[in-house]
Amino acid sequence: MYRPEVRLLDCTIRDGGLMNNWNFDKAMVKDVFDGLAKAGLDYVELGYRADKKLFSPDEYGPWRFCDEEDLREVAYPCDSKVSIMCDVGRTDYDTILPADESIVHLIRVATYVNDVEEALRLSRHCKEQGYEVSVNIMAVSHATEAELDACLEKLAKTDIDMVYFVDSFGFFNIDQVKYYCEKYVSRLPGKHFGVHTHNNQQLAFGNTIEALQKGASLADGTIYGIGRAAGNCPLELIMSYLQNPRFDVRPVLDLVQRYFESLKQELRWGYEVPYAITGLLNQHPRTAMALMKETDEKPYSAFYDELKQGDGA
Amino acid sequence: MYRPEVRLLDCTIRDGGLMNNWNFDKAMVKDVFDGLAKAGLDYVELGYRADKKLFSPDEYGPWRFCDEEDLREVAYPCDSKVSIMCDVGRTDYDTILPADESIVHLIRVATYVNDVEEALRLSRHCKEQGYEVSVNIMAVSHATEAELDACLEKLAKTDIDMVYFVDSFGFFNIDQVKYYCEKYVSRLPGKHFGVHTHNNQQLAFGNTIEALQKGASLADGTIYGIGRAAGNCPLELIMSYLQNPRFDVRPVLDLVQRYFESLKQELRWGYEVPYAITGLLNQHPRTAMALMKETDEKPYSAFYDELKQGDGA
Repeated sequence: MYRPEVRLLDCTIRDGGLMNNWNFDKAMVKDVFDGLAKAGLDYVELGYRADKKLFSPDEYGPWRFCDEEDLREVAYPCDSKVSIMCDVGRTDYDTILPADESIVHLIRVATYVNDVEEALRLSRHCKEQGYEVSVNIMAVSHATEAELDACLEKLAKTDIDMVYFVDSFGFFNIDQVKYYCEKYVSRLPGKHFGVHTHNNQQLAFGNTIEALQKGASLADGTIYGIGRAAGNCPLELIMSYLQNPRFDVRPVLDLVQRYFESLKQELRWGYEVPYAITGLLNQHPRTAMALMKETDEKPYSAFYDELKQGDGA
Repeated sequence: MYRPEVRLLDCTIRDGGLMNNWNFDKAMVKDVFDGLAKAGLDYVELGYRADKKLFSPDEYGPWRFCDEEDLREVAYPCDSKVSIMCDVGRTDYDTILPADESIVHLIRVATYVNDVEEALRLSRHCKEQGYEVSVNIMAVSHATEAELDACLEKLAKTDIDMVYFVDSFGFFNIDQVKYYCEKYVSRLPGKHFGVHTHNNQQLAFGNTIEALQKGASLADGTIYGIGRAAGNCPLELIMSYLQNPRFDVRPVLDLVQRYFESLKQELRWGYEVPYAITGLLNQHPRTAMALMKETDEKPYSAFYDELKQGDGA
């Protein structure tokens, strides 16, 4: 595919941080930013800006908070713009500096459909401070159509720059992605829409391709697919699919070899059957992550039955 | 998706054998067959029937040859039919017993487009002996359209039961699979067509879904995706996608846990960047497999450049 307007966002440090409490060391993050800048990424997301009244810096690494001085140690002004993510309900508005005092360019507000009013308030604040703003609607597979439609209708009326379709649990297959993307395109005229997938059923890249075919103009990826549980869409695969000469996949390949192959041995993201089970049953991966830490061997078939049957409600 | 006519073929032992010279022990293969029979598979492919004048039983395990007595030790008559694969040019016709003296039901003839005449001769022999017969056209991504069209035209005129579309190098993406499947459907009226994918770009399952959407009525999978290099489409994922109550994924989940998680540690199939590189460049994975065995660290970017530039021809 060649659609030159498609922009790429890397969220290696932000989503990968879910696997190590954002304890990536600064020299490594600096190399990652530099490699991604050379690869021509449009945006590099370096973490969350979490409220320190809710999360302690003693428990989490710097990329949970993305203090301005930490960002400036690893990133530099270039064509690759720095992004951070703010969770609705976990953000201290006072930590959002005016954009001209910050190295951050894009703020992505992560919300569930039912928190959209608070997401709009936070987004307005970020816009007023001068940032480009995205609203990322998480866990769409747990929302009713009516809830999602109402949420999209509200977003369509704002000056928010981008809206993301997020398959939080790695549940959707290609047919379903097609359906949702057609909805996003029709309900959000004039806005960019992006796609963020998870790999529980090994569909992160396939679903990203489908979304790009159906009109998404932004795609998220992470180096070597790092991310919570089964991980995300591998950036190196989207880059080569796009066939856009302004992207150079080679710095990303070398980052995989230098850092991420050994990190994967340590942190163990990627395809595993317990993650596939939570994915196909449209559930959060936390039960799978717990199962994989247990020492007693519960049969996977029993785990599947438990999750499928739920509590009989 | 629910298309009750879709049939599933497992080729765990046949394709997985490419990673260990078919040295699976009989007790394990017996358990695999039994689990797959309980899971409701339509076909279980237990290996190749290679010519012992060309391949020595001293060098290869029993599933390279699939002697009748070995098959009968691990399989039993049931609704899951035994399949074997014969490579064009590597098959001793005299080893194809009359079907009523064999536990084998389906023979799959693997061919390149240019060997189709010999594939037709072998297929006729197998049909005459009483077998169901499939022709699997390998390496379609290396054939010209004209070659493929001529091959399909010849196959359309035969009484061969099935024809498979095979993405040998894990090169195709979803758009391309759509194109080829529409071709197979239109050029092979009245025949079943099947899909066999490889996972170099993590598209094995996504491409299988696309083929099933576009009319394939047979799909191949392997347990936990075992197969050469990046491996194949994970059977457990296709099974749950099909939503057909005659399939029960649970025995497959338990086989993963019992055998295939530890086998993967040993044999190391699955997504790796060198396999992604050969896949996206439409090349055989042998160079990637060699790279991964080397001890000196050639940068992946250099490997990519070498393969991309070829010899300048």
